[in-house]
Order: sequence, then C-alpha cells, then structure tokens
Amino acid sequence: MLINVPETVVADALRGMAAAHPELVVDAENRVIVRRDAPVADKVALVSGGGSGHEPLHGGFVGPGMLDAACPGEVFTSPVPDQMVRAAAAVDSGSGVLFVVKNYTGDVLNFQMAAELAEDEGMQVASVLVNDDVAVTDSTFTAGRRGTGATLFVEKIAGAAAEEGMPLERVEALARQVVESSRSFGVALSACTTPAKGGPTFDLPAGELELGVGIHGEPGRERRAMMTSHEIADFAVDAILEDLRPRLPVLVLVNGMGATPLLELYGFAAEVRRVLDEREVAVARTLVGNYVTSLDMAGCSVTLCQVDGELLRLWEAPVETPALRWGR
Amino acid sequence: MLINVPETVVADALRGMAAAHPELVVDAENRVIVRRDAPVADKVALVSGGGSGHEPLHGGFVGPGMLDAACPGEVFTSPVPDQMVRAAAAVDSGSGVLFVVKNYTGDVLNFQMAAELAEDEGMQVASVLVNDDVAVTDSTFTAGRRGTGATLFVEKIAGAAAEEGMPLERVEALARQVVESSRSFGVALSACTTPAKGGPTFDLPAGELELGVGIHGEPGRERRAMMTSHEIADFAVDAILEDLRPRLPVLVLVNGMGATPLLELYGFAAEVRRVLDEREVAVARTLVGNYVTSLDMAGCSVTLCQVDGELLRLWEAPVETPALRWGR
Repeated sequence: MLINVPETVVADALRGMAAAHPELVVDAENRVIVRRDAPVADKVALVSGGGSGHEPLHGGFVGPGMLDAACPGEVFTSPVPDQMVRAAAAVDSGSGVLFVVKNYTGDVLNFQMAAELAEDEGMQVASVLVNDDVAVTDSTFTAGRRGTGATLFVEKIAGAAAEEGMPLERVEALARQVVESSRSFGVALSACTTPAKGGPTFDLPAGELELGVGIHGEPGRERRAMMTSHEIADFAVDAILEDLRPRLPVLVLVNGMGATPLLELYGFAAEVRRVLDEREVAVARTLVGNYVTSLDMAGCSVTLCQVDGELLRLWEAPVETPALRWGR
Repeated sequence: MLINVPETVVADALRGMAAAHPELVVDAENRVIVRRDAPVADKVALVSGGGSGHEPLHGGFVGPGMLDAACPGEVFTSPVPDQMVRAAAAVDSGSGVLFVVKNYTGDVLNFQMAAELAEDEGMQVASVLVNDDVAVTDSTFTAGRRGTGATLFVEKIAGAAAEEGMPLERVEALARQVVESSRSFGVALSACTTPAKGGPTFDLPAGELELGVGIHGEPGRERRAMMTSHEIADFAVDAILEDLRPRLPVLVLVNGMGATPLLELYGFAAEVRRVLDEREVAVARTLVGNYVTSLDMAGCSVTLCQVDGELLRLWEAPVETPALRWGR
C-alpha cells in the first residue's frame, strides 16, 4: 500500500485534497470538506459523507452543482454526528440542509442523530436514504438494501436542483425520485485491502468471482467460477431489471471498484449496452469510470436510473467538482 | 480480469467508448477515435496513439481543447502506421497535423513511417517526441528516456494552442517546450496483468517495490523493501529535481498506475507537496488521478512541468474530453 501508517491514511488524504483543490476548504482537523463559496445565499445545502475507501465518493463530489460539504469517516466506518453537524453549519445559508445517506446501519444512526442536533441548533434538515443495491435484502452492514452507485445520481441531480434555487421540499422530493428510480448490482473479481488489516478483507480465490458484492466486500448472492464480461453483464443487468422495469430511458453508470483497468471497464460498458439493447431499455447517458470504489478491489458495478425530462436536464446541468466536471 | 477473450479486449473497449461517448466518432474497424466535429476549419490537428493498457491515455483525451484523434494499438503494442495516417486524414483541415509520440521504439518507427506516408498524401506533418522519464537512460522498450506522464501535459497544452488557432510551427514549439520542461518518475507496488498473459508480467514479490518502473512494468533503478508514502515521495521528487531545476512554478501530476486507491493517491499527493515545499519549488496546479496507467499495476508516478504564464494559461484553457474536462 502507498501509505505512511494506517492511522493517518484519512488525514494524509485530506492534506492531499487541500493541496490539489484550492477551490475547496478542507478542515483536516474536523474532517469536513466544503466548497469554498459556502454558504451560498438562498441555496439549499447538500451534505453527505460515509466511510473512506470509496473515493472519489464523497469528497470528490463537493463543488458547485453537487455537494456543499462531505464528511469522511475512517476507512469503511461511518463519520460521527459531530462532523455532520459541523458540515451542515458550515454550508447552511438558512435555506435548509439535505443529508444524503447511504443505507448502512452506522451511517443511518449517525446522520439521524446529526439531524436532531442540527435542528436543535435551528437548522432545517431533511434526509434521503439511498438503498439501490438489489443484490441482497439485508447484509452484514445493513437492514434493507445497501446504498451504492445511485448515490452519485442523487448527489448530482439533487445538487443541480439546489444550485438552481429550488426549495428544500423540492430538492428532497427529487432526491427521493432518483432513489426510487435507481438500482445497482456489483461484482468482485478480487477482495480489497484495508490499511488497518494490510491484507485481503475477505477470501476470494483467484479464478472465482462474487456476484452481488457490497462496496465493503460484503457477501453477495453467490460465488462462481470466473465468468466473461458478456456473462457478467447479462447477470448484473438482469438482476436489476428483475426489480426495476424502466419505462423511461435510463442513465447508466458503469462503475469500477478500484483495480479494474479502464480498458476492461469500457469493454464491460459495451456488454452492458448490448444487454440493455436486447432487453429494449433505452439509454439516455452512460458514465464509465471509478466513482464509487472499494479501495483496491477488482470488479465493477452497474447502476441504472430511469429519468424523465426533468431528471435528465438536472443530470446534464453544469457541475464543477474534483471528480465530476462539465460545463453548459 | 473483466474480459471476454484476450483477442477482443481492444475492440470491446472501443465499442464501449462508442456507447458512452456519442461526442466521439469511434471507428472500431480501423481503431481510430476522432472528435465528432473534426476536421475543424483552420485548426492544427493533434493526433496521438500508442499501445492500449494506459487508459484514459490516449482515447480519453480526444475532444475540443486536446486531441483531434487517437489510435490505440494492441495492449502494450504500438498502433500501426495505417491507423495513424487514417487518423491524420480524418482530422486534417489543411492546417497541418502534429503527432504526439511517446518515446518507445515501436511508436517512434511507426509514427515516422506514418508521417512520411501522410506527407506523400499532401498533409503537412510535424512530430514531437515525449521522453520525460528520468528513471533510466535506455530501457527494454526504448533508446533514450521513456515517455510517460508528460504526455498528458503535452496533449493538453498543445491542444489548447491548436484550439486557439495557432499555426503548426507554434503548436509544435509549445509542445517541445512542454517536453523540455517536464520530468517524471514512477514506482510500482505490484506487477500488472496483461489479458494475453493472464498473470503478472513481471515478478515483484509482496513487500517490495520497483523504483523507476516504466508504464509497461519495465525495470527501473532499483528494487527495495516497501517504503512509506513519505519516503517514496522524497525519492521520486528528488530523482526529478536532480535533472530538472525549476525556476518557474510547476504543474504537478500525481498519477495512479491503475490499482492504487484514490485515497492513497491523495495521501501521496500530500507528501509530494511536502517535498516540493521543502525544496522550495513553487506549485502552480496539481492534478491527482489515474491518467497514464499500466492496467492493474499498483503504484504511482510524479510528473513535474515548469510553466511560464503562457503554458499555464494554455493548461487552464477549456477542455472537453472523456477524462479531462473543465470550462472557462
């Protein structure tokens, strides 16, 4: 691993973010990343966070058109309520705060407590729970579905709505619409290595894959002998389509877990498009890359989000963050 | 590996690029990726290419403000002159073509032949050779220094110059200035896996690293027991500064080789900044991410490019490609 000592991995990364991104304010001591011009007057503020190890999620999505602040926890560990309240206080313009919460037990409890504390301080807070992963109903880390790739769609689309000055109820409703319209499925081709452990966090023999893996390496539906990109795309997309029957075009996220080369990821994107064509699902836009990762895990996930004209317009709206950036 | 069969890896990836990027024209048969609005009238055209396995280099850098076309070879294998000539013909508006060539024997020979063929067809062609890697003087793949991370700086800055309508001699001169102002050093923490081989391409025992590794896993200066991020940054930056004594501020690329988590890469970026501060080298801008990769190799590289006001202005100019995108 490219680290100093496991204890300083998150602090070191925050120093690096501060060095590379002068457009962000990085409070390394309190572990809060904030867009420099926050609070933005008359704008709903978006705050998210979660365990580290999924970068660029969430810190890489802070900036105009997306998150106002992110709070990173230790690797694969929820941030604490204090961080969340500090983040909210730093970005609240008085127009209210939306917490974007991935459905993991620790995150849910801590964001809930943070919402109460922030309300005690006079802030108006709404929360949206992201639970898009169709692989399993409950898991080691979760009651209910896990929150994975759809988080990117929620943060981007709700972020654009907030940037346009929509009120908190509307931003929250759009975020919920994205959650309800999104489903994901992930596959591991290798385990990941946490700095604290220094070795694989679970046992996945070479030549096998885990279908339905979670973003912390949580077990999925089944383990099989290695499959082709073609077969994996069939399995992943069909698992999603069993649950989501899109009547509208979909946004497609073909996401790398960390160690899978972009060359292979684009090949997989071709197979995902093939399956969608075969199933007669129309594609609005496709994003390919490492966005919701699991440290150095090899593998990929697919997220589909069906979008009406309004959601698509908000997806396309300008965004200016370290990891997602486009104009017009 | 997330593939179908080794033989179709590049073709599959091109199908995926076509699916994800309607703003590009992907000629999968001839293996040429072209910006959709090419040829752009009165604009010098930039063409690059090289072996696949280094994505997003070069296909991910095609678009307004950067490359007009890219031609990918097989994994770690130069594209052929035919591809390069086709790419040049597709994008030449009559204002001339600049070939950006990484210094590897195969690429150099093939681009040279392509330049002659293109000139025979009436095109005006200039070429710039990128050779920024200070690790070794000659290598398995190279006479002279290898071309690595500086390629991104050359393509971005020369691309911006071309976009502004500068003539071929000026675009070429700026590209040369970037090459002369840039140096890189890379480190491998693990070997990479080519689809054809299906296993590690070289032997790097766990707990060791290769200082000065090339982007195909070519040997570097020495092999040592694992070092900290702090120590690696000292070694890499000092190796560069032995050769390049910047009197101007530098652009810094902290590049991931493929499998190193972004969390670790940002921590390494903090250490690179620390060394530069200690050596009193001013930093103009820092870019952190996976840009010039070696499939699933774990590791990183540092590239410094000293910039005057003009180079910095061109670096900051708008760019709109799959992997590098910013406005204003």
